[in-house]
Amino acid sequence: MVTQRDVAQRAGVSVRTVSNVINDFAWVADETRARVQAAVDELGYRPNLLARGLQRGRSGLIALVLPLDVQYFHDLASAVVDEAERRGFTVLIERTAGNPARERDLVTRPERASLFDAIIFSPLTLDDTELRHQPGDTPVVLLGEKPTGRGFDRVIMDDAAAAEAVTRHLLEQGRTRIAAIGQPARPAGRTAQHRTRGYRRALAAAGIDFDPALVGGIRSFQRADGAAAMARLLDAGPPPDAVFGYNDLLALGALRTLLSRGIRVPDDIAVAGFDDIEDGRYSTPTLTTIAPDLPRLAGHTLDLVQRRLDGYDGRPTTRRTGWTLIARESTGVAKAPQLEH
Amino acid sequence: MVTQRDVAQRAGVSVRTVSNVINDFAWVADETRARVQAAVDELGYRPNLLARGLQRGRSGLIALVLPLDVQYFHDLASAVVDEAERRGFTVLIERTAGNPARERDLVTRPERASLFDAIIFSPLTLDDTELRHQPGDTPVVLLGEKPTGRGFDRVIMDDAAAAEAVTRHLLEQGRTRIAAIGQPARPAGRTAQHRTRGYRRALAAAGIDFDPALVGGIRSFQRADGAAAMARLLDAGPPPDAVFGYNDLLALGALRTLLSRGIRVPDDIAVAGFDDIEDGRYSTPTLTTIAPDLPRLAGHTLDLVQRRLDGYDGRPTTRRTGWTLIARESTGVAKAPQLEH
Repeated sequence: MVTQRDVAQRAGVSVRTVSNVINDFAWVADETRARVQAAVDELGYRPNLLARGLQRGRSGLIALVLPLDVQYFHDLASAVVDEAERRGFTVLIERTAGNPARERDLVTRPERASLFDAIIFSPLTLDDTELRHQPGDTPVVLLGEKPTGRGFDRVIMDDAAAAEAVTRHLLEQGRTRIAAIGQPARPAGRTAQHRTRGYRRALAAAGIDFDPALVGGIRSFQRADGAAAMARLLDAGPPPDAVFGYNDLLALGALRTLLSRGIRVPDDIAVAGFDDIEDGRYSTPTLTTIAPDLPRLAGHTLDLVQRRLDGYDGRPTTRRTGWTLIARESTGVAKAPQLEH
Repeated sequence: MVTQRDVAQRAGVSVRTVSNVINDFAWVADETRARVQAAVDELGYRPNLLARGLQRGRSGLIALVLPLDVQYFHDLASAVVDEAERRGFTVLIERTAGNPARERDLVTRPERASLFDAIIFSPLTLDDTELRHQPGDTPVVLLGEKPTGRGFDRVIMDDAAAAEAVTRHLLEQGRTRIAAIGQPARPAGRTAQHRTRGYRRALAAAGIDFDPALVGGIRSFQRADGAAAMARLLDAGPPPDAVFGYNDLLALGALRTLLSRGIRVPDDIAVAGFDDIEDGRYSTPTLTTIAPDLPRLAGHTLDLVQRRLDGYDGRPTTRRTGWTLIARESTGVAKAPQLEH
């Protein structure tokens, strides 16, 4: 087996220099780097990252662990990967699908965590009690409002305020019977609770009574659930004049049901979603939605990671990211500008 | 630092038994497992996966390296993760975004590869010359038709045949001026070349001359590119009576342009895509498309991985996966059944 010593001998440099090149440290002169690289190639030297991880204690890898079950999480992952790459990290993404067992694995099996310099984790079902175990010494940054995540650095968004803004926007368009689709049947995610809270707050501020008959239950946050919930609402009684889907997929599913029944959107029923996935920018009509500030979320997240890697071991910090209400055709607002060719 | 020896002593078992429990081997009795687990918890023992990797040579991890830039790759990733989990592997996903430098990294920096039991790789830009280096001893399975991937196990789909089927379907609906959107400007992916080949084969079989004026160029396979290419085609001359987008995103972008100009789909212009992403099942009109058999693709892929891990070191194998043409409203076929409430 070829060792770093062999490479050093062949390249006429010290073993430390070989190590510096292999670790991609910036301070090695280009010509030295080239000579070492040539020796590596000639000898077929292959550094072992497992061994290097043990030596250095740093792998350059960050784990991003998230449900990845709906488009929003793909967009979120994309923003985090972009930002991490800018800072020289490689991100490996692990899908939990919100599966409690897989989420628990992450926090209770620290041997996996030791592969990574840090873990960015968006838990869907884990509660505070289960999250109390930090996975070993690996820094963890939590994304999202659930659970409260005491003891962890985390980045959150004010879901309730954003949901309130969507509902107020629908009220401002003169709608008064505003259905809400997104409350899961099983006692679930705080996301839905926060959005319901915002929805009810806007109704209350407008002096409109909350009507449980206008709440469409779902099993998951997918298009099929939005389509089915919309159908049930239409079949159950007098139709709403607006629908707020707790994510864009639910709203797009509802939209499909409405259009396939010949109901005009927004004329008869306005539709709004949440997440600003690309789909809603190209649907007909285009979809009014909330756009979370994902680049900022990613920036905050990597700041918190970097601070821990730099040695900070003080109290955990919570940072907030912003959002924008984007009004489009589905609530009666003019065509999306990007399509005005 | 707590060692396996300490755990063994506390649990009253051998060090080998502790190791078996930590490695999750199936043959340990439940009560023994529980006793070891209790000792692990009491002592706060933390196995080091890096050290374990060196010992065992197996990490239980598979890397899935793919562009992840369009929805199709999310669906593909989901199918592979599902199948791998069924077989007891954990998949870590790395996004290349089709970036040549990142793709090259994978094959030229074997230290990363050594973390994984196997690598599943869907290259977008790498050619055969660059792919000739196997990353160390880690088995690699290639996904997709490009590059030819000599020397690697791989799983492919007959893109040209599927594209031919879409075009033939449009011809069967009486369309004769069939535009094709999906040929990248830069000399790129074989996927587009294969689909163009199938498109032209169907035209030729119907005795229709290929018309370069009906080819819509793109920069990437995104909705915005489809929308812009459609607008250019409409502005350039006599409109087509059908459009084949080389993926669903391009087709959905084209659909948006058509509808926003008041053009009826499919009455005036029929639209078809490729990939069967969920979006096209809920758009209005629903989108005719090709559905690749992703579960089968994932099954083949994991079979090839498993065979290498079981010690097979014979010649590389190519396996094929199938596809289905799904006709929906956008080409004049009845509403999608899943929405018939």
